[in-house]
Amino acid sequence: MVSFECDYIAGAHPEILKRLAETNMEPLPGYGMDHYSESAKEKIRAACGCPDADVEFLTGGTQANSVIISTMLRDWEGVISAESGHVSVHESGAIEYSGHKVLAIPGREGKLEAASVRRFLKNFYSDVTHDHMVFPGMVYISHPTELGTLYSKAELEELSDLCHEYEIPLYLDGARLGYGLMSSASDLTLEDIARLVDVFYIGGTKVGALCGEAVVFTKNNKPAHFMTSVKKRGALLAKGRLLGIQFDTLFTDDLYFRISRHAIDMAERVKEIIRKKGWKVYMDSPTNQQLILMTEEEMAELGKTVIFDRWGIYDDTHTIVRLATSWSTTEEDIAVLAEA
Amino acid sequence: MVSFECDYIAGAHPEILKRLAETNMEPLPGYGMDHYSESAKEKIRAACGCPDADVEFLTGGTQANSVIISTMLRDWEGVISAESGHVSVHESGAIEYSGHKVLAIPGREGKLEAASVRRFLKNFYSDVTHDHMVFPGMVYISHPTELGTLYSKAELEELSDLCHEYEIPLYLDGARLGYGLMSSASDLTLEDIARLVDVFYIGGTKVGALCGEAVVFTKNNKPAHFMTSVKKRGALLAKGRLLGIQFDTLFTDDLYFRISRHAIDMAERVKEIIRKKGWKVYMDSPTNQQLILMTEEEMAELGKTVIFDRWGIYDDTHTIVRLATSWSTTEEDIAVLAEA
Amino acid sequence: MVSFECDYIAGAHPEILKRLAETNMEPLPGYGMDHYSESAKEKIRAACGCPDADVEFLTGGTQANSVIISTMLRDWEGVISAESGHVSVHESGAIEYSGHKVLAIPGREGKLEAASVRRFLKNFYSDVTHDHMVFPGMVYISHPTELGTLYSKAELEELSDLCHEYEIPLYLDGARLGYGLMSSASDLTLEDIARLVDVFYIGGTKVGALCGEAVVFTKNNKPAHFMTSVKKRGALLAKGRLLGIQFDTLFTDDLYFRISRHAIDMAERVKEIIRKKGWKVYMDSPTNQQLILMTEEEMAELGKTVIFDRWGIYDDTHTIVRLATSWSTTEEDIAVLAEA
Amino acid sequence: MVSFECDYIAGAHPEILKRLAETNMEPLPGYGMDHYSESAKEKIRAACGCPDADVEFLTGGTQANSVIISTMLRDWEGVISAESGHVSVHESGAIEYSGHKVLAIPGREGKLEAASVRRFLKNFYSDVTHDHMVFPGMVYISHPTELGTLYSKAELEELSDLCHEYEIPLYLDGARLGYGLMSSASDLTLEDIARLVDVFYIGGTKVGALCGEAVVFTKNNKPAHFMTSVKKRGALLAKGRLLGIQFDTLFTDDLYFRISRHAIDMAERVKEIIRKKGWKVYMDSPTNQQLILMTEEEMAELGKTVIFDRWGIYDDTHTIVRLATSWSTTEEDIAVLAEA
Repeated sequence: MVSFECDYIAGAHPEILKRLAETNMEPLPGYGMDHYSESAKEKIRAACGCPDADVEFLTGGTQANSVIISTMLRDWEGVISAESGHVSVHESGAIEYSGHKVLAIPGREGKLEAASVRRFLKNFYSDVTHDHMVFPGMVYISHPTELGTLYSKAELEELSDLCHEYEIPLYLDGARLGYGLMSSASDLTLEDIARLVDVFYIGGTKVGALCGEAVVFTKNNKPAHFMTSVKKRGALLAKGRLLGIQFDTLFTDDLYFRISRHAIDMAERVKEIIRKKGWKVYMDSPTNQQLILMTEEEMAELGKTVIFDRWGIYDDTHTIVRLATSWSTTEEDIAVLAEA
Repeated sequence: MVSFECDYIAGAHPEILKRLAETNMEPLPGYGMDHYSESAKEKIRAACGCPDADVEFLTGGTQANSVIISTMLRDWEGVISAESGHVSVHESGAIEYSGHKVLAIPGREGKLEAASVRRFLKNFYSDVTHDHMVFPGMVYISHPTELGTLYSKAELEELSDLCHEYEIPLYLDGARLGYGLMSSASDLTLEDIARLVDVFYIGGTKVGALCGEAVVFTKNNKPAHFMTSVKKRGALLAKGRLLGIQFDTLFTDDLYFRISRHAIDMAERVKEIIRKKGWKVYMDSPTNQQLILMTEEEMAELGKTVIFDRWGIYDDTHTIVRLATSWSTTEEDIAVLAEA
Repeated sequence: MVSFECDYIAGAHPEILKRLAETNMEPLPGYGMDHYSESAKEKIRAACGCPDADVEFLTGGTQANSVIISTMLRDWEGVISAESGHVSVHESGAIEYSGHKVLAIPGREGKLEAASVRRFLKNFYSDVTHDHMVFPGMVYISHPTELGTLYSKAELEELSDLCHEYEIPLYLDGARLGYGLMSSASDLTLEDIARLVDVFYIGGTKVGALCGEAVVFTKNNKPAHFMTSVKKRGALLAKGRLLGIQFDTLFTDDLYFRISRHAIDMAERVKEIIRKKGWKVYMDSPTNQQLILMTEEEMAELGKTVIFDRWGIYDDTHTIVRLATSWSTTEEDIAVLAEA
Repeated sequence: MVSFECDYIAGAHPEILKRLAETNMEPLPGYGMDHYSESAKEKIRAACGCPDADVEFLTGGTQANSVIISTMLRDWEGVISAESGHVSVHESGAIEYSGHKVLAIPGREGKLEAASVRRFLKNFYSDVTHDHMVFPGMVYISHPTELGTLYSKAELEELSDLCHEYEIPLYLDGARLGYGLMSSASDLTLEDIARLVDVFYIGGTKVGALCGEAVVFTKNNKPAHFMTSVKKRGALLAKGRLLGIQFDTLFTDDLYFRISRHAIDMAERVKEIIRKKGWKVYMDSPTNQQLILMTEEEMAELGKTVIFDRWGIYDDTHTIVRLATSWSTTEEDIAVLAEA
C-alpha cells in the first residue's frame, strides 16, 4: 500500500530529525528565545528579502490563522475569505471562537477575485446601516488554495492594491506555500509575496516539518505584546527550539525549496498517470494536490493498493478524490499508483 | 412631515405608559422577580396555549438573539440562518462575539426553505471531514422575515419536522411577530408557532413597547441557570418591572394583537397608495413593511413630506425604499403619504 | 410594609414619566440619534465641565462595565479591581465573558488604595515572567463603593496620578454616583471626577431612571466605532429615546442632584434610627446604603413591617443587613422603620 | 556553564528521538488517528489502571488547561484554583479568554486545602445573591504544585470527596506529574490519582518529550465532540503521530517513571549541595524544583558557571532562585553546581 492521502502522512525530512538529534542535549532557553529560533528568523527574513520583517513560529495552521486574525482584527471587524477558504470551512469555527466573523464571499476555483472583494467593500461602505454590520478588516487568501490553484502575480498585486486602498491588511495562508512557489505555473517569488502582503505564514507541517508554521509580519506590523497574546490562546510552545531548529534546517541550503520542488515533480508524474488513465479531472491544479472524480467502483479498485482522500461529494455517483504528493513521495509510490 | 421610517419611531402604546405610571411607586423586587412579570408570563403562556412554557424577558432583539443562541448551542455548534437573516447581516457579529458561527445559506424572499436546510444538513453529515467543521446546532428563522414575508403553516411544519429529525432546535425571531400574526396572508396562530418551534421571542420593541422582547421556551428547554447566563452577557435588567409591566399590558385584552392589526390595516392603505402611484414594488409583503424601488429624484420629492428608510441599493439608479407602518401609524400619516 | 431593600424598588421619578408621556408620539430616529439624546449629552457635558467629552447611553450597570472595559482593554490586558468590586464579584463573570481577567487585589472598606495598586503594578513589571501574565490595563473603582463608602478627593487624585504614570485609564463605576456626590462627607464634585478619571458612568437605574447609565469618556478617548461594538454586545437600544429623554430630564434643573440629596437626607434619618435603636453598624457609610448586623430573631422582628436586604453573612449568628434609601424613599417609610 | 534553569532546557529523551526516526517514513493518518497514538492511549490506560478512560493528546500545558477547563465548564461556571495556581497567574488569561473566571482562593504552600474549598463552596451557596455570581464548576489543582510541593493521598481524597459531594469535577494539572510520583515523599500512585480525580494530564513537555501532554478523562466523561472543540481552539495537531509516538515511547518499559526517578535523584543531590552550602531554602520541596533565597552578589557568583531561574522577588535584598533538575540533568551538571 502506498499513500497519496495528504501531504502530512510522513514524519519530518530526515535532515530535520538529524538536526534535532544533534542539538538535543544543548541547554536552551524556552519560548522561542533560543539561538536556533533567532537564526531561523534571520534566514527567513533573508529569503523574503525583508530585513525588517518580524518572524514568529506557531505550531499549526488553524492555530496560526486564529492567532494572526484575532490579534490583527479590531473589535468591530471581521475577515473576508473565499467561501471555500480554510478559515471559513475547515477550522471548526476557530475564527468565530475568537469573537470575529468570517465574511465569506464566492470565489473562483478557490481564489478570491479582486473585483468581488471590491464590490463587497463598496457595497459595505455604501450601505447606510453598515454600523450595524461587521466591518471588513482583513482579506484572507490561501496560496496555493484549498483546491490546489495559484494566484498569479497580477492577481496578487490587484488584491494588494485594493487592500492598501481600503487600508486593511492582506493575509496569505501559506500552509502549502513551498508547493506553490515551486510550481512551474507560478510567477510569484517568496520576495514578491513578502512585498505584496502584510502578513503570511510559511507552512512547515505540510512541507517537511513535524509541526510548525513561520509567521512573517512584513510591514513592521507585528501586534504589540504578541507573545502574551499567543500564550493567552494556548499557542506558546515551551520548547520553542522544536520550531526554531526545524525552520533553521528548512531554510539552510534551500532545503524548503528543494523538497517542495520534489513534491511538484512527483505531482507532474501523478498528472501524467491521471491523463494516461483517463481519470476525469475535477480541478486542474499546478501544485501538489490533484482532484479527480471517481465512482465507488473505481475507488474500490484504486483502494486496493493506494490510500487516497475522499475530498468531497461531486454528484450522486461521483466522489472528488484527492491525490496529494509531498516532500516524502517516492518513485516507488508513483510506480504503485501507475500500476493501480 | 410624517414618518414611515421604521416601526420603532414612537414611544410606547399609551396604555403601557399609563400602567407604568399607575404602578410607579409600588416597591417591587428586582431582576424580574416582581408579580407583574409573573402575571405577564402567565398571560403569554395562556396566549401560546403552552401552560408549561418558560417565559423570560430581554431588552432588545439582538440581545435576545445573542443570549438565546449562545446559551442553547453547544461548544461545537453554529446556527443555520438565511443569508438575509438578521443574525447573519445586521447584528455587528453578535453571534460570533459569543464564539459561534452563523452558517448562512441562501434563502428565498428572506425565508429558509426546508429543502435547502435538508441539503445542507445532509451534505454536512456525509462530509467525512465534518469533525473539522462547525456542526449545525440550531435553525434560525425570522417571522416576518427581514423582507416582510411570512412562512406558511406548511412551510413551518416542514422546518419543524426537519429539525426534529436532526434533533436540533428551531428558533423563531419574532421581532415583528404581531404584524405577522395579524396579516390576512397568515395561516399561523401564536399557538401554532409555540407548538412548532422550540424557542421564539415575541417582539415588543417594534410592537408597542418602549423596549423588551418576551422569550418563550416552548419545550421545557430553558437553559439551566439562565438568569446567570443573562447577567453574564450584561443583559439582566435591574428593574425587571419595566419589561413585566409592558408585556402584562400588551397581553391584557388582546392589546398586542389589536395594535398589530392596526398596523396591518395601515399597511394595506400604504399598499393601495403604492399601487395607485404606480411605484415599483421590490418585494410584495403581506406585513407592515413595504419595499419599493425609487430613483434619487423620486426620493427627493417624497422626502419633502415623508421620512422613509433607504433600505438597500437595488441598481445604479434605484434604491430600495422601505415604508413601514406600526401600531403608531395614524390616518393623518396615511393622508400625507397619499398626498406626497 | 415599607421597603428599604435596595435603591431600585420603585419605577422612575414622576418627572421622567411625564416627559416620556409628553414626547411619546413624536417620531424620532432610533439608536440614540434623536435630539433628546443629543440634548441630554450636552447637558451632561456641561454638568461635567467637559465640553469635549463623549457621552453614550447604555441600559444597565453590568452592561456598562462590560462594554466599557472590553472595548478599552487591549488583548493582553486585564482590569484591576478591589476584591469587593462589582465587576469582580457580582456580574456573573461578565468581564471574563469578554475574554479579559479581573485582577482583584485587596481593598480597604471597599476602596482601592493607591499604595496597593502601586505595589501590584511594581511587582508586575519587576516580575521577569510578566509576559506570561495578564497585563494590568485599567483601574476600576466604584464610587460610592459596594459598601457605601467614598473616595476623598486626595485619594482619587492619587489614583489618577498613578494611572497617568503607568499610562492606563482610570474607570469609575458611578452606579450610585448621585448619592456619592450629594453626601455631606464628599469633597468631590462631578467636575472633579470628570477631570480625574478617564471614563466613568453616571448611574440612572439606581438614581431615578427606569433604566440607563450615561457613560462619559472624558479625555477624547471613546473607542473607535463604539456604536458597532455596543451592537455586537447586544447592548444597543433601538429606541434610544428611552435613555435620552430620561437623562435629559435628570439633567434639567438639577433633578439628578436634588433627588440624590433627598436620598441622602433620608439616609441620615435612617442612621439616626440605627443609632437610637443601638443596632450594630457593620460599615459606617456616608451614602444611601447602611450596613448593620442582625441576628435571625432581630431580622424576623424587623421583617414584620420592613423589607430589607440580606447583604451577606457576618458570622454564625449575625447577618449583614442592608437598609438602602433612594430618591423614592418617603417620610412614611422612615416613620415605619422608626416604629419597627 | 551548566543549566538548572527549568525542566525544559533539553530536547527529548534520546529514546524518543530514536523512535521518531524509526517510524519517520511510515505513512500514517493525521489528527491522532494513527496506531501509535492508539497504542500510547492503551498503555496509559493500563498504567492508570483505568481500562475505560479516554486519553487525548495535546501539545502544551496552558493549551491543555484551557481546552479541558473550557470544554468541561458550563456557561455559568468558573474554576476554583489556588491563588498561586498556574491557570490563575501564569497563562496570560487563557482561561478568561475562553469566557470563564478563575475563582482564586488562598492556598498553603501552593496547595488548595479542602477546608478552604469547602468554606468557599458553602459561602457561595449560602449567599442569596449567588445567581449574580460565577458558579464554582470545577476544582483545579497542580501536582506537583508550582512551588514543588505535593498533595498527600489523604489530602487528595479529601478534595475528591468534597468535589463529589458538590458534584463538580476535580482536575489535576500534572505538568510535572512524573516528578511527583517518583518523589520519595509521595504516597500517591498513578492509579490513585486516576481513581481520585475526574480528569488530569500527564505532562510530557517537562518530562522527556519535545512537546505534548496526555489528558486522561477517568470517569467516562470526555466532552462530546472533543476533537471538534480542540480544533476550534487551534489545538489539533495535524501530525498527531508526533504526540502518539512520544507517549508510546514514554509508557514503554516504564521510561516515564525511570527518567522521572532520575530527576528526583538529581534533585536530592541538589538539596544536599544546598544544605552543605547553607543556602537559605524558600520552600522545602520533595520534587525536582528547589527554591532558595539569594542576594544579588550570590547570584552573580553562582551565575558564573550555573544558569538558574529568578523565580520571584522575596524582599528588597533577596530573590527567590529556582534550581530545577529534570530527566536530562547529568552528574557533570551536579559536579559543576557543587563547585559553584
